[in-house]
Amino acid sequence: MRGRDSVADLARLVQDIAAEMAEAGERGEVASYIPPLSRIDPRQFGLCVAAADGSLHAAGASEEPFSIQSISKVFALTQALGKVGDTLWRRVGREPSGTPFNSIVQLEREQGIPRNPFINAGALVVCDINLAGHEPRVAIGELLRFMRYLADDDGIIIDEAVARAEQATGFRNIALANYMKAFGNIRHAPELTLGVYFHQCAIAMSCRQLARAGRYLMHGGLYEPGGPRVIPAQRARRINALMLTCGHYDASGDFAFRVGLPGKSGVGGGILAIAPGQAAIAVWSPGLDANGNSLLGTLALERLAEATGWSVFSPD
Amino acid sequence: MRGRDSVADLARLVQDIAAEMAEAGERGEVASYIPPLSRIDPRQFGLCVAAADGSLHAAGASEEPFSIQSISKVFALTQALGKVGDTLWRRVGREPSGTPFNSIVQLEREQGIPRNPFINAGALVVCDINLAGHEPRVAIGELLRFMRYLADDDGIIIDEAVARAEQATGFRNIALANYMKAFGNIRHAPELTLGVYFHQCAIAMSCRQLARAGRYLMHGGLYEPGGPRVIPAQRARRINALMLTCGHYDASGDFAFRVGLPGKSGVGGGILAIAPGQAAIAVWSPGLDANGNSLLGTLALERLAEATGWSVFSPD
Amino acid sequence: MRGRDSVADLARLVQDIAAEMAEAGERGEVASYIPPLSRIDPRQFGLCVAAADGSLHAAGASEEPFSIQSISKVFALTQALGKVGDTLWRRVGREPSGTPFNSIVQLEREQGIPRNPFINAGALVVCDINLAGHEPRVAIGELLRFMRYLADDDGIIIDEAVARAEQATGFRNIALANYMKAFGNIRHAPELTLGVYFHQCAIAMSCRQLARAGRYLMHGGLYEPGGPRVIPAQRARRINALMLTCGHYDASGDFAFRVGLPGKSGVGGGILAIAPGQAAIAVWSPGLDANGNSLLGTLALERLAEATGWSVFSPD
Amino acid sequence: MRGRDSVADLARLVQDIAAEMAEAGERGEVASYIPPLSRIDPRQFGLCVAAADGSLHAAGASEEPFSIQSISKVFALTQALGKVGDTLWRRVGREPSGTPFNSIVQLEREQGIPRNPFINAGALVVCDINLAGHEPRVAIGELLRFMRYLADDDGIIIDEAVARAEQATGFRNIALANYMKAFGNIRHAPELTLGVYFHQCAIAMSCRQLARAGRYLMHGGLYEPGGPRVIPAQRARRINALMLTCGHYDASGDFAFRVGLPGKSGVGGGILAIAPGQAAIAVWSPGLDANGNSLLGTLALERLAEATGWSVFSPD
Repeated sequence: MRGRDSVADLARLVQDIAAEMAEAGERGEVASYIPPLSRIDPRQFGLCVAAADGSLHAAGASEEPFSIQSISKVFALTQALGKVGDTLWRRVGREPSGTPFNSIVQLEREQGIPRNPFINAGALVVCDINLAGHEPRVAIGELLRFMRYLADDDGIIIDEAVARAEQATGFRNIALANYMKAFGNIRHAPELTLGVYFHQCAIAMSCRQLARAGRYLMHGGLYEPGGPRVIPAQRARRINALMLTCGHYDASGDFAFRVGLPGKSGVGGGILAIAPGQAAIAVWSPGLDANGNSLLGTLALERLAEATGWSVFSPD
Repeated sequence: MRGRDSVADLARLVQDIAAEMAEAGERGEVASYIPPLSRIDPRQFGLCVAAADGSLHAAGASEEPFSIQSISKVFALTQALGKVGDTLWRRVGREPSGTPFNSIVQLEREQGIPRNPFINAGALVVCDINLAGHEPRVAIGELLRFMRYLADDDGIIIDEAVARAEQATGFRNIALANYMKAFGNIRHAPELTLGVYFHQCAIAMSCRQLARAGRYLMHGGLYEPGGPRVIPAQRARRINALMLTCGHYDASGDFAFRVGLPGKSGVGGGILAIAPGQAAIAVWSPGLDANGNSLLGTLALERLAEATGWSVFSPD
Repeated sequence: MRGRDSVADLARLVQDIAAEMAEAGERGEVASYIPPLSRIDPRQFGLCVAAADGSLHAAGASEEPFSIQSISKVFALTQALGKVGDTLWRRVGREPSGTPFNSIVQLEREQGIPRNPFINAGALVVCDINLAGHEPRVAIGELLRFMRYLADDDGIIIDEAVARAEQATGFRNIALANYMKAFGNIRHAPELTLGVYFHQCAIAMSCRQLARAGRYLMHGGLYEPGGPRVIPAQRARRINALMLTCGHYDASGDFAFRVGLPGKSGVGGGILAIAPGQAAIAVWSPGLDANGNSLLGTLALERLAEATGWSVFSPD
Repeated sequence: MRGRDSVADLARLVQDIAAEMAEAGERGEVASYIPPLSRIDPRQFGLCVAAADGSLHAAGASEEPFSIQSISKVFALTQALGKVGDTLWRRVGREPSGTPFNSIVQLEREQGIPRNPFINAGALVVCDINLAGHEPRVAIGELLRFMRYLADDDGIIIDEAVARAEQATGFRNIALANYMKAFGNIRHAPELTLGVYFHQCAIAMSCRQLARAGRYLMHGGLYEPGGPRVIPAQRARRINALMLTCGHYDASGDFAFRVGLPGKSGVGGGILAIAPGQAAIAVWSPGLDANGNSLLGTLALERLAEATGWSVFSPD
């Protein structure tokens, strides 16, 4: 909508997309791996666009909190880069993995260095950095405060039932943490690092809260135009780059192909997408496709990017 | 340089970058796998920027033809999509590979379907599509005519010495083609498909020719602003997306992180990069880094993207 | 039957086993990958035991020639060790592969060195050694003479229709040979080495011929007790060891577990098994199990080993 | 030594081999992964042959207890087969792995089913079976009683310092157990199963004790000739088969090639080898080769098998 969009047009487009998604027949499968997620009603759909001009455009269940799961990895990475800067990249790569999100194969081949910070193994190393010798609740409290600040909303909380369920069933993640510990790439006791990870995944947010929290990535690292700087401009670009190449696990290439925006999905059905200079977008629909990404969420973003021309690969 | 760039600024920047690269000490290693490439002087550097306004800004050895190698895969993909449209994606994926460019491992796991059209296996399937039952020289002639048209330059030729050397030493590519033939994903006799592939890789172009040939990807599929349509706008966006996620083999994530532009490299030391709506950029320096991408070419693009703000992940 | 067997008992046992197999309902699937093999009648079963005392005990279609396929790898290995001795092991390993017989994955990980001489890649290197700068027909003629000598039977021939079919459809083997050529582990032009391989696989033999040809492995390398030495005793032990650990591809462990004898199978449905000091056994039934080994052939050997106590893991 | 050996000859041979090993220069590297093992003096060597006639022939440090580590997997497997019979094979394969002993890659490809009971993952499943709902100390006590009975020696104990060190550093094993738990192939809480595993690996035995404990595998499952049956004859053959194909991790093929006997090694430097009907042999030398098997232990067994003709692949 560069040059031709208007607040009115965007508001109508958001409503139209939500209406189309409400009607959709094929909605994907709700994640079944932990009970609190498996009980979510798959008919829900929420969308919120935080536009560059400060306006918010929401439709559907945009106020309903959902489990952000892996979307938290974007904010945890931002937090960890703030703590240790580019030394982080000695412990985590920045390449797409070519394997599913919870794969352990790559770690054996590459000696305990995860391919990127958005697969589970990489996110665990990020948690290990954020832990920094403290109690898990200190690290998780710090992350929560950061996200409340970004969203300007103190209502963001951790869903303790989800956190407990993650902990009780997260054997693959326990395996990943211990495996990297064997290579020396987890510095704390694995159960502490895992404690941070399980709680971070259990953060619950609405589309409105999530879209607002993502604004710094649209604004080149500023809280808002003319506002305080959250992170350097180069770091904002780089996080966007990582979201585009690695944000959807082994379907990242397809998301870039179809939507053309940096995005990060979670198995709770949420996606955060960034149109640099244009918008931060949060979408939520609990049904997942075969790759574990929100089926209608992806489709909604495809519609939005097509209609607005917001694809980063477009000349407009 | 959106909003603030000028022809003069860009011209000076291109000169400055070429001057910096001329001085660089660490220049990487020239590809050694075929004799005609291994004899290239590593001290060379060329750069050409075809800007959106039609202006061309060149510096260094920008008129020197070099072997474009894998950069040809972008044009061959464009050609194949023109022939068979999206049915192409039944035979080739669009995900980053997570493995080196000539890996055969992934093919076994995924039953002969290459991960994307820019790894060698994927490019061989694209050649098989372009062959379409004709003689190899017909398919290769067609590709050459297309590239001459795009660059508006009839001087683009195939370096027959390089083509012969590829053929004489290309055992891994012969293995890949026969392996996919075993899965039914090569339709012609493997030696015919390989004939197209080896000749396409041996196309020689200068930075000037290459930058001009890439303009349709900057202009959303148009030959030039207001000019004829080469491909649909959506297809141009999608090819850019594939270049960004898969264009630098197993260093694509790193290129996106550092440069932030869709790009495609070749082992001849060339890179074609696209800043949508801003520029098509060709850079050439024969020394390669450990991943087989031009060391100084990547550095030059990093400088250019930083100075101009052309990163697709930047809000400007 | 150590100490308690008799010629009469063994003769009856062989008849009983053949009778049981004639009645069997589940017979496996005939190999479908080349037409001449796919047309074989799955109801056939043949068995021949060449006992240590020189007696032969045969039942069923024991005079019917069949395509020995990979069983030829045992004789080709014997021939190659005679030419180059233990230097052969610089180019081929001696470990079970953990992957299917035609896998190419392992070659990438281990730089073109096949895991053992009985997977296709390893057998190709063995062919390359046997070729030794000659024409393919010289090497294959030499192997044929060796096998006729061992079996004392000039009726052993190559089935040219099978050889041509292998050549016309053997894309995976062509891939393997070219892939190893890229690593320098095939010394001749790949098509020459492949020519030897395809013809060797197409040797046709009856159970009677095959059991007799295998006697040197029962007799510690002697043609027969008191007869001329074919290979050193240590080499005979070692070939038996390789057959036990690697002779049935990725079901070698299971064959050792069930049958307990060194054995080599072929997709034509034949198996050669060796009971050191007791017998050389050839069995043939064209129906294969999921791992590509003769279903009834394996069952017949299990019965025979159980009844005779010939398992190498038995104290008798 | 079938038919021609004598007690005097065997006694002299054992002394000669021990004398040769005492002189050896290249002795391998002592396992460094846990402190109690890394402090062992690499100059030690012990050998004990329990012959079929009941005689014992020992030399060197044959009375010195060492950490049997993975050799315990043979006895734990015997115990588990006694509990659940062949249903065990639904949870563990019986194929060589083609990967290192602590690899996790294969588990991902094969959905949590370890390739065989002698790699760490497989041994963990065996421990999970032996645990059978009890406290870890019950299962480990039962195993210890079984081994004391087999060796007729109540002096066999668990080295608690080793057990604690395993527990404190066994992150890869913790990863393996949790990873299989995620696939449902560990039934108890992973820490309980791991408790059994770490203690079982920490059993300390002398060569004399170990050779005696292995006699049932030489005698087709009998405690001694004419003695009580420990396990069925078929099961003894099958355990021997598994030791031959899988007992030396990714060097099992090489051990079969060189020694020709079923054997199981441990990183403490011990090896138990079985010559069916002839002898149970225990050898110990702490220095390991690149594959983690005792360097001099393997060499000593090679000498012994060559001199006695005990190879299972020999006609004698």
